[in-house]
Formats: sequence, C-alpha cells, structure tokens
Amino acid sequence: MNFHEKPRFPQGFRCASRNCGLKPVDKDLALFVSGREATAAAIFTRNQFPGAPVILGRETIKAGRLKAIVVNSKVSNVATGTAGLANARRMAAAAAAECGTTPDRVLVSSTGVIGVPLPIEKIETGLRGMTAELTDDPLDGAHGIMTTDSHPKALSASAGAATITWIAKGAGMIEPNMATMLVYIFTDAEFEASVLDQMLRRAAHGSFNMLSVDTDTSTSDTCALLANGMAGPVPEDEFQKVLTAGCVRMTEILARDGEGAEHLLRCTVRGALDEREARLIAKSLVNSPLIKTMVHGADPNVGRILMAVGKCFDATIRTNSTDAWVNGYAVVRGGARVDFDDDVVRDALKTEVVDLEVSLGVGSACATAYGCDLTKGYVEENAAYYSS
Amino acid sequence: MNFHEKPRFPQGFRCASRNCGLKPVDKDLALFVSGREATAAAIFTRNQFPGAPVILGRETIKAGRLKAIVVNSKVSNVATGTAGLANARRMAAAAAAECGTTPDRVLVSSTGVIGVPLPIEKIETGLRGMTAELTDDPLDGAHGIMTTDSHPKALSASAGAATITWIAKGAGMIEPNMATMLVYIFTDAEFEASVLDQMLRRAAHGSFNMLSVDTDTSTSDTCALLANGMAGPVPEDEFQKVLTAGCVRMTEILARDGEGAEHLLRCTVRGALDEREARLIAKSLVNSPLIKTMVHGADPNVGRILMAVGKCFDATIRTNSTDAWVNGYAVVRGGARVDFDDDVVRDALKTEVVDLEVSLGVGSACATAYGCDLTKGYVEENAAYYSS
Repeated sequence: MNFHEKPRFPQGFRCASRNCGLKPVDKDLALFVSGREATAAAIFTRNQFPGAPVILGRETIKAGRLKAIVVNSKVSNVATGTAGLANARRMAAAAAAECGTTPDRVLVSSTGVIGVPLPIEKIETGLRGMTAELTDDPLDGAHGIMTTDSHPKALSASAGAATITWIAKGAGMIEPNMATMLVYIFTDAEFEASVLDQMLRRAAHGSFNMLSVDTDTSTSDTCALLANGMAGPVPEDEFQKVLTAGCVRMTEILARDGEGAEHLLRCTVRGALDEREARLIAKSLVNSPLIKTMVHGADPNVGRILMAVGKCFDATIRTNSTDAWVNGYAVVRGGARVDFDDDVVRDALKTEVVDLEVSLGVGSACATAYGCDLTKGYVEENAAYYSS
Repeated sequence: MNFHEKPRFPQGFRCASRNCGLKPVDKDLALFVSGREATAAAIFTRNQFPGAPVILGRETIKAGRLKAIVVNSKVSNVATGTAGLANARRMAAAAAAECGTTPDRVLVSSTGVIGVPLPIEKIETGLRGMTAELTDDPLDGAHGIMTTDSHPKALSASAGAATITWIAKGAGMIEPNMATMLVYIFTDAEFEASVLDQMLRRAAHGSFNMLSVDTDTSTSDTCALLANGMAGPVPEDEFQKVLTAGCVRMTEILARDGEGAEHLLRCTVRGALDEREARLIAKSLVNSPLIKTMVHGADPNVGRILMAVGKCFDATIRTNSTDAWVNGYAVVRGGARVDFDDDVVRDALKTEVVDLEVSLGVGSACATAYGCDLTKGYVEENAAYYSS
C-alpha cells in the first residue's frame, strides 16, 4: 500500500493549532473540524482511572456523529474529580461555539501530566478565533497534540475515491488496550457509524493494541475515526484494507518514536496454538526489558528470547520445536542456541528496524507486536517529566 | 526479629568458593556441604525454558534429601539441549565425589548467560580438593554465586535452639514466580522434607514471589531449604515465623541490589477485594517503568500511581475510594490528587527506601511487592551483558 508522499486531508477536513499558554512556547492546543458533520466511532483506554475527556467522550460517541475534535497537551485532566469533568464539558462547549455546532458533536482529548487541574480559562481564550486559522495541512494539527513526541505524526492514503488521514501522538505510557494514545483518523468516505466502529476495532486489533513502549497503559488513550461522506461510498473491504495498513504503519511510527527509542522492534510469533497465545508471547518479547536492552546495545544475548517466551507460563510451548531469528538470521533452533557468528547477529541488531521472529511449532496462529529499545533516554525523560 | 550481626552457619554446614576459570579473576564456583545428610525442599522457576540444572534439580529433590549444593556463575547452562543436561549430571557427580556422597544427593545450580555451553571440564577441575577449603563463613559461598550483584548476600537468625542461614544472589532477570533467583537456606533444625516443603512455599509466597527487578523471569530460579537436624526439633510455627521474616528481608536486599538500583521500592496495597487482586496491583505498581523512573528521579508525578492501579483491568477498583501515600505522606485521596507540597513529596522520594501505599477501599486483603527504581545503570549493564 502506498501512503501519500506528503500527508493531506480528505475533502472537508481542516485543522489549526496554537499555543494557549499551557506550555511556555510550543503549541499545546489543536482543533480538527469537518465542514460537513461526520459519522464517527471511537475506542478508549481500558485503564480504570480514565481521564475526564475519556468519560465525556464515551458519552459523546454514542450518537455516532462528530463535527470537531479539540485537544490540548501538557495537562491530561485525569484524577481531577468532578471539577475535571466540568472542565472537559466547558472545553467541548468552547470548541462547539467556535465551530458553530453543539457540544455533543465535539470530541475532547487532553494529554500530559496526570492529576493537575486543567487551566480551562486559557483553553477557552485560546480557542477564540481559531477557526480563522484552519489549514489543509494535517501536520499543523499533529504539532498541537505532541507531548514528548520528537516529531509530529501524520499519514494519508487513498481508498478508492476516498482519502484516509491518520494523525497521532505517542511516546510514553503506551501499552494501549482496546485503544491507543491519541489517534484521529479522518476520511471522506461514506459509512454508517456502526460500520465505522467495527472497522476501527478490526484495524486496532492488530495495530495499536499490539503496541507497547513501556507496558504502562495511559489513562487518556483515544482513537477516533470520522467519516464525512463527501467522497461517497467506498467498498468496505477495500476501505478496511487501507485503514488497517495505515493503522499498522502509524503503530510502527509511534513505536519507533517511543521515549528515548533508537530502534523499532517488531516481534513476530508464528506457529502458536491460537491467536491469544501468539499475541501474549509477542507482547512478552516486545515488553521484556532484557530484550529491549539487548536490542539497544546490539548485544547478541539471544538466550533472552527463550526466557521471554518461557515466562508465558500459561502458553503452549514445545521447548524442542522453538526456533528464533534476528532479522532473518537463525539464532535458536529446536530450543537451543545456534552456534552463530556473534558479529553477524551484532550487526543485525544494529539496524534501525529489528525483527525478532519466533516459531513455536505448536499450531498455526501468528501475531506481531510493536515496540522499541529501552535506553538511558527513556529513564532520563521519565525521571523528571513532572518537574521539567 | 533480629538477624545476627555477622551471618553464620547452622551447625554442620560449611562452604567454599573458587575461581575455576569461567570468569577472568572473580570467583565463579561455590560448594555448600552439610556434615550430616539433610532433609530438603526446593522450588524452581516456572519459566518454560528451565535450565538443565533446574531439570535435574526437580528430579533430585524428589528424594527430599541433600548433602551438598554446587553452583557456578557466568554461564547458566540453559538452552543447551541434551549436552547441557549431561553436563549438569557431570557437575553433580564431580561434587559428589569431592564430598563423599552420591550424585543424587547434590543440588546443582548454574547462573549467567543463557545458551552458551557449560565449560564442564573447568568446573570438574575446579571442584577437585575444594572440600579442603570449606569454611564457616557464609559470605565466602555467597561470593562464589554472584553475577551482577554488587555485594555478596547472606543473613542468619536464630529459631529456638536452631539457626537459619540464607545465601542468595539476585540483580537482574528477576520476577520469580513460584521461586526466585538462587537462594539457599540452611538450618540445623530437624524437620521432615514434606514439612520443609510446605514451610518454604509459605515463606516464598509473600517474599520471593513478590519480588521483581525487571518483570523478566529467569530460566534458572532456584530456592532450596536444607535441614540437617543437628539442633533437634524446633516448634514449626516459631520456625515458620523466622523463616518467613528472613525470606522477606532477603527479598528486600535482592530488590535494593537490583541491576542499577538506587532505591528499594516497596508497594503495599490494602483494602483489596482478595489477595489475588492485592498481589496483582502491588506487582503492577512495582513493575511500572513510569513509577520506577518517578522514584529514580524523585519526581512527584504521583498521578502515575493511579495509572498503574487502573491498568489492572480485571481488578476491582472504586475510583472514588482510592487513596495513596508516599512514605506516609498522602498524595491521592478519593481517586484525585491531593494538593500537596511538591517539595515534601520530592524529599520523600529521595530516601533510600520508598514505600508506596495504596488503599482501595474495596475489601480487606493486602499484599506488598518489592522492587527498585529504573536507572541508566540498568540499561547500561543489560545493553552489554553478553559482550562484556
């Protein structure tokens, strides 16, 4: 599948971003608007302490219709009690007034530090006049939602006559479960909200739900799909294929830009008993600190692959049929380490994208998990996130 | 409970350690011998790729009797196939010959890199004449089993007329499950092997099984308890109390000396629905990279506590009855962040031992998990463990 060289919006979608004073200088407020009201679906974090915007978003998305999305970064409006929920509603109302719609057609997201009150007045003031600045460049909106991301993230691709555009932020506190960090997907294809919901869940299953930067599930994860229908109907299977491919690609981009990351780590498990076990073991590999540091240091300590498979106590393993490869180079065969050339494996681990593949020889299910290496940069960023 | 100021052995136990050429200079071979054959119990890793010594140990411990333990460090004899198992048997035979017993009375352990063939000849040569060097100092044996530990680990305490001595190694690849890294416990109390087994499992349940340095479960975890009976019978409840307290203390020592660690992190969960949920949430807290880096940087980013509780999707949480404390200082009340003084919390996080307490207000079960902070030192050690 081909992504557009420069990401662009589907017909009718535009965005703007600003600094409203939550951060010293960088942009901290973003607005996404559809000219025509869109059908919509969204999935949210499974964390049991969801932020106020997630609580409100679950209510809003029931109608299956959205006109705008408003997002602030720096402060996540989580663990802020009833005042937090009231602030999320004020944020929806302010964006609705600016866009000429009602608050129940606005999805709100906030990302940043947990437990700090949302400076709602700054956001309300910041939103005023923002529609005058709406542009056609998805990267403009992607800028406004960044926290520790090193670059704004946007992709687009064609699906028949329609366009699909993905805008996301990631970086840390990322092991989404039934959702991801902030991902907004826009299309001018025409679909019922219930169909969008099914397609979004299918796409997230093998992409965002298989992403982990650090095993920590954010309280703010939100992934929304808006379809304004301006390009008319598109065959569902064609749309699903492009939607899923774009979600996988955005997952890779998010993983590669995990806090402190220097490598994209893809862990594929084949020959598993069933998909549940394949996913479990792929996640165990991608989350293992000792695998992640091995990749970081390009240290061919591949016995750790067996450790990370074997610590899935409840999965079906046949020790003597377990094989493993690093970027296609065999390192484990029949459950024992291959007598390989250290330098070749060291070189394989030095590439920006590292593929670990494990074949279990038990069944025929497979899964891929997406993550990154564990570096001193991760420790540095997260040892002073609140204070800096 | 009081531990002896200087750790000592129970009657009849002695140890020796040597460099046999696996490491350049440091000790890499240890031998523990009981003058009188002991009753014994042991628990091993649940990792599905157990090392050859664990496979052999499970067979050996069935008889419930041991005379000696032989341990090498540097190479773990894991993922080494049938040759590995043969080497473990040769190691038992060599130690048995040196100690005047049979191989089925010798417990073998190996710790170090996974997947590298065991240099068995060096170990056989190294064992020769080693009984002539047996000493009364447990630290001598503790030296021989170290890998990345920063200091040798031994404790002893009295239980009635008997003595209990713990010798252990830890540092990395540590989230034991039904076992721990290498922990050997010696006593001159008199117990049947089946009673020892029950007492050991009870003691490990709240100690080693609640320890996690990095979520990675070693393929070599072994925890054995030997009782040579030389001090005669001791009341079981008194013995259990001391045994458990020593296992908890050794767990704290192992956590504090986790790879790169600068803090001991204790996470206690109270008011949980049941013990399973209390343990699950305590482990989620102690394993969260964002909690661990918060402690490392003394960054009062305490909203992360709620994140780590809330990501236990299947546990029973009441968001508005969740409270949390850092070293006794209230930071979360009713699911929302308390408006605390940042500097006070920052100071609390700077102490060597950091206690995070969470009260769920759901039931009456509690659990404590033991871990450490995540530092650049952890990344550094594990990015080049094999190569260095």
